[in-house]
Amino acid sequence: TKDRYQSNDYAGVVTGLAWTAVGGEILFVESSLSRGKGSKLTLTGNLGDVMKESAMLAMEYIHANADLLDIDPAIFEHWNTHIHVPEGAMPKDGPSAGITMVTSLASAYTQRKVRKKLAMTGEITLRGKVLPVGGIREKILAAKRAGITDIILCKENEKDIREIKPEYVEGLNFHYVEDVKQVLEYALLDEKVDNPKVFTIPEEKA
Amino acid sequence: TKDRYQSNDYAGVVTGLAWTAVGGEILFVESSLSRGKGSKLTLTGNLGDVMKESAMLAMEYIHANADLLDIDPAIFEHWNTHIHVPEGAMPKDGPSAGITMVTSLASAYTQRKVRKKLAMTGEITLRGKVLPVGGIREKILAAKRAGITDIILCKENEKDIREIKPEYVEGLNFHYVEDVKQVLEYALLDEKVDNPKVFTIPEEKA
Amino acid sequence: TKDRYQSNDYAGVVTGLAWTAVGGEILFVESSLSRGKGSKLTLTGNLGDVMKESAMLAMEYIHANADLLDIDPAIFEHWNTHIHVPEGAMPKDGPSAGITMVTSLASAYTQRKVRKKLAMTGEITLRGKVLPVGGIREKILAAKRAGITDIILCKENEKDIREIKPEYVEGLNFHYVEDVKQVLEYALLDEKVDNPKVFTIPEEKA
Amino acid sequence: TKDRYQSNDYAGVVTGLAWTAVGGEILFVESSLSRGKGSKLTLTGNLGDVMKESAMLAMEYIHANADLLDIDPAIFEHWNTHIHVPEGAMPKDGPSAGITMVTSLASAYTQRKVRKKLAMTGEITLRGKVLPVGGIREKILAAKRAGITDIILCKENEKDIREIKPEYVEGLNFHYVEDVKQVLEYALLDEKVDNPKVFTIPEEKA
Amino acid sequence: TKDRYQSNDYAGVVTGLAWTAVGGEILFVESSLSRGKGSKLTLTGNLGDVMKESAMLAMEYIHANADLLDIDPAIFEHWNTHIHVPEGAMPKDGPSAGITMVTSLASAYTQRKVRKKLAMTGEITLRGKVLPVGGIREKILAAKRAGITDIILCKENEKDIREIKPEYVEGLNFHYVEDVKQVLEYALLDEKVDNPKVFTIPEEKA
Amino acid sequence: TKDRYQSNDYAGVVTGLAWTAVGGEILFVESSLSRGKGSKLTLTGNLGDVMKESAMLAMEYIHANADLLDIDPAIFEHWNTHIHVPEGAMPKDGPSAGITMVTSLASAYTQRKVRKKLAMTGEITLRGKVLPVGGIREKILAAKRAGITDIILCKENEKDIREIKPEYVEGLNFHYVEDVKQVLEYALLDEKVDNPKVFTIPEEKA
Ligand SMILES: [Ca+2]
Ligand SMILES: [Ca+2]
Ligand SMILES: [Ca+2]
Ligand SMILES: [Ca+2]
Ligand SMILES: [Ca+2]
Ligand SMILES: [Ca+2]
Ligand SMILES: [Ca+2]
Ligand SMILES: [Ca+2]
Ligand SMILES: [Ca+2]
Ligand SMILES: [Ca+2]
Ligand SMILES: [Ca+2]
Ligand SMILES: [Ca+2]
Repeated sequence: TKDRYQSNDYAGVVTGLAWTAVGGEILFVESSLSRGKGSKLTLTGNLGDVMKESAMLAMEYIHANADLLDIDPAIFEHWNTHIHVPEGAMPKDGPSAGITMVTSLASAYTQRKVRKKLAMTGEITLRGKVLPVGGIREKILAAKRAGITDIILCKENEKDIREIKPEYVEGLNFHYVEDVKQVLEYALLDEKVDNPKVFTIPEEKA
Repeated sequence: TKDRYQSNDYAGVVTGLAWTAVGGEILFVESSLSRGKGSKLTLTGNLGDVMKESAMLAMEYIHANADLLDIDPAIFEHWNTHIHVPEGAMPKDGPSAGITMVTSLASAYTQRKVRKKLAMTGEITLRGKVLPVGGIREKILAAKRAGITDIILCKENEKDIREIKPEYVEGLNFHYVEDVKQVLEYALLDEKVDNPKVFTIPEEKA
Repeated sequence: TKDRYQSNDYAGVVTGLAWTAVGGEILFVESSLSRGKGSKLTLTGNLGDVMKESAMLAMEYIHANADLLDIDPAIFEHWNTHIHVPEGAMPKDGPSAGITMVTSLASAYTQRKVRKKLAMTGEITLRGKVLPVGGIREKILAAKRAGITDIILCKENEKDIREIKPEYVEGLNFHYVEDVKQVLEYALLDEKVDNPKVFTIPEEKA
Repeated sequence: TKDRYQSNDYAGVVTGLAWTAVGGEILFVESSLSRGKGSKLTLTGNLGDVMKESAMLAMEYIHANADLLDIDPAIFEHWNTHIHVPEGAMPKDGPSAGITMVTSLASAYTQRKVRKKLAMTGEITLRGKVLPVGGIREKILAAKRAGITDIILCKENEKDIREIKPEYVEGLNFHYVEDVKQVLEYALLDEKVDNPKVFTIPEEKA
Repeated sequence: TKDRYQSNDYAGVVTGLAWTAVGGEILFVESSLSRGKGSKLTLTGNLGDVMKESAMLAMEYIHANADLLDIDPAIFEHWNTHIHVPEGAMPKDGPSAGITMVTSLASAYTQRKVRKKLAMTGEITLRGKVLPVGGIREKILAAKRAGITDIILCKENEKDIREIKPEYVEGLNFHYVEDVKQVLEYALLDEKVDNPKVFTIPEEKA
Repeated sequence: TKDRYQSNDYAGVVTGLAWTAVGGEILFVESSLSRGKGSKLTLTGNLGDVMKESAMLAMEYIHANADLLDIDPAIFEHWNTHIHVPEGAMPKDGPSAGITMVTSLASAYTQRKVRKKLAMTGEITLRGKVLPVGGIREKILAAKRAGITDIILCKENEKDIREIKPEYVEGLNFHYVEDVKQVLEYALLDEKVDNPKVFTIPEEKA
């Protein structure tokens, strides 16, 4: 069944765009933290190896750029991270959820709200470069149908948008980026979610 | 052999609904805790990868929402969790036991009784959203045959119930949900099981 | 070669009943403990995945019901467990050794003798329910031939016994059970084996 | 190439008997200990799963029966064990090296010499029972050809020896056993090897 | 799509040369460090086993030759290393990225800039020897097309350059090496990147 | 490409002899140590399972015979070992590099020079016995072509040398051994390499 955009009530939930044999679709990347013994990363949602590597890259980016987001690095040593991409029965793969995953993690770690009616698609590299992805036309149609109004894409995907008939992209605003920093600046609001989680750190034993 | 509903005497035992090549069936999800060195999750019952991921999601949800259920988070660091789905020889897979698993864990961790003659089927996501599942007609017939009176389903599965002939659903009450919170509120009684287990936490060394 | 019942001299050795392509057979489940760093479970005897899961369930049951058997739970953190099912070259699988395994562990952990000339077959679940198994006729014939006089079966297997010609079950006493508690009550004698092992626990450092 | 019996100069080296497509052969099981963080067992020599399980059983037997051999159990927590069966390129499998492995470990842990010109073949179980093995005729011929004079076999293999022509077993003494204790009593001399290794244990920090 | 040389703004990003079924290409090796419990090496980018071993060799070389680069060896025990080779969907294998990987790690660990418009290809060994690689002609054409001006090659690949028509290598400077030391001396500038990361080491507890 | 003997400048680099479908070849075994948390052994060079087991045997031999080489056993607990066999793209297997690996490790751990123009081939066992290997004729031709003057072989391979035409072995000196001790006595010089690494051990906390 075709999903619709839902809300930005939850920290760590970000809308991505997928392209399958039967056309474009929106998907949701969910991240959640829980107290534990160290920086364990759990991945669920029937993810293929390339998509799992995207999640590892996203986690590493957040880890290496914690200061950018005002995240206390001690959190990584006392909280575990779980990334899930529903629906569980559908196999998913490819690198195009990279920027969605890094935004999901950034929101989960900061408890900041994600911008409303926003979707995104793009590969990330370890240094934070955003790379172009395929299936842009199908993904855009799916986003519009789902009630999305703003879409983040790689600058190199701008040419793919220009090839789409204007009426199909009417009502959609495109935000072209080259670096993950630009994604996070646009996608994350300053406002925190209601009842934000507080990530406590155990006191050092003296 | 076709199982019948049994009782709500045990904490951690919850009735789910499965759909196989030979029709619908009820199944039991069992959870148990034992003292150990950390939050290990053991899964048995010939479970496929998608079903194992459901269990991981259920565990993560309980972990991240411990306050909702008044669970002392220190329990997770000193008790291991085991989820089993009999019968051991039958392979099982799919995401539809998600809400059954999260209810089973919630009951095991709180030692609260599960509502009598209740069965459930639905996928969960990491944030606690409940997603619709397939095979509703077959599952409902199996539930009725097994002596079930109350069934929790995803709101989006309501349309599947409306398509079933009224005489087949006679005597069954449906409880439609969108979020795991609603599942737990309905499924878990305030009453604890007889002789509830007490989950002790070792004292911090001063 | 066809084995015969041996003795109850050893703690942790329990006679089970197997059903293979060439008929029924008795088998021996052996459990042994050794000092170590934590609750490691080692399984040998060419066991398939379902049989390995039976052993995990048996171990978890003993762990979660230690008080039932007067086992000091600290033993689990300082002793490792090994379960072996001879003969090493023969592949074995299926859930029907469940109650044999839990009895073997209970005897090993308590050093109590197992009742003489007793054999058993039945699946266990995590909460301790005993489920029926197949191949009852062949298993019973093998038990009799091997010198067994008492057999524990699941209550739901009683109907299978009634279908066997009376002369074949002459001299055999059947003990039907629904719960692992009943298995242990019947199978374990109060008497300990000769020279019982003592499971020491290192003193806490003050 | 056909090996010959070598010597009993090394602790932990014991002669076994193998049976392959091209006839019987002697083989050597070698065990060695080295200081480390805990009871790690390393197995080399292109061993199949059943033979690896034999080694695990042998190790567990030594561990659980340390008192029998006057082994300080603290050794297990500070020394790692390595079992090797040359030649490295030849795949080997089956349970029949069980008693050879347990004797090899016992010699390595006690540094006691192994009886001269002795070979052995037999499966072990966890409780120490010795089970019969196949290929006896071919193994005996290989042992004689290799210069062996004494052979340990399972009591149940005595009938296989009686079926061999007397001239083929001339000059060979057979020692039939039912329990690993009997194997060790016969195979291990009281005398230690020259320059025996001393297995030190680090002092507890006060 | 054909990539172009980018910049030397980032520490740990080095340009390599690959040779695939469809011709030569430039690729980027990215390395990044993050605080953690020990010297974990994470590899992403759909790398085959031989390429993963190249990364392990590169890491080991940096580890064993830390003094050469003025790296405090304590960093290895408190920082984890991640190497990524975009693009994530393209499988990559072979040993020829060895010197690119060791240069990437050296830059990441020292935060020194990599020489501008430089690309390289060559296998490394554990002792730091540089071995020749294949596909030189195709790789050189790709480098030139991408805007590269300087190329590091193994001395033994000099003969492959001499076989290329002069006009194809016009504007390219070749730097032949036999040892990783020569690669690092040429490729790494003394200058650090802007805002270099500082790798802190937790103080020893007294 | 056919390699030539290189030098004995590096500790831990030893020349071995391989035999492939296209004839004999020399190869280099490289060992290197780096500080870490314990005795980890890393193996690279596209090695098959039998060759990996050879490396494990070589490591165990050095570990168990540290006194023979005046190695402080505390080194093993604070330094990790890496063995590499270039070239990375070529799959290698078999037990014949055993004595080459043990010599490589001995040189790396002692920083003693390896004898000049020396190559070797032979399997090792855990107790240090050297076993004969195949392909002697092809290996000898390759050694001579590569500039080798001295070759260590198993005593049982002497007969293979006698079958080679005298002119082919002219200028080559053969050193036949039965035990690893003899290999190390001949292959390792008393002299250390230039700038030998010093393997520090952290002081015990009082
Ligand atoms: Ca969907
Ligand atoms: Ca996406
Ligand atoms: Ca059933
Ligand atoms: Ca269900
Ligand atoms: Ca049998
Ligand atoms: Ca059984
Ligand atoms: Ca042989
Ligand atoms: Ca044997
Ligand atoms: Ca490209
Ligand atoms: Ca390259
Ligand atoms: Ca070569
Ligand atoms: Ca060699």
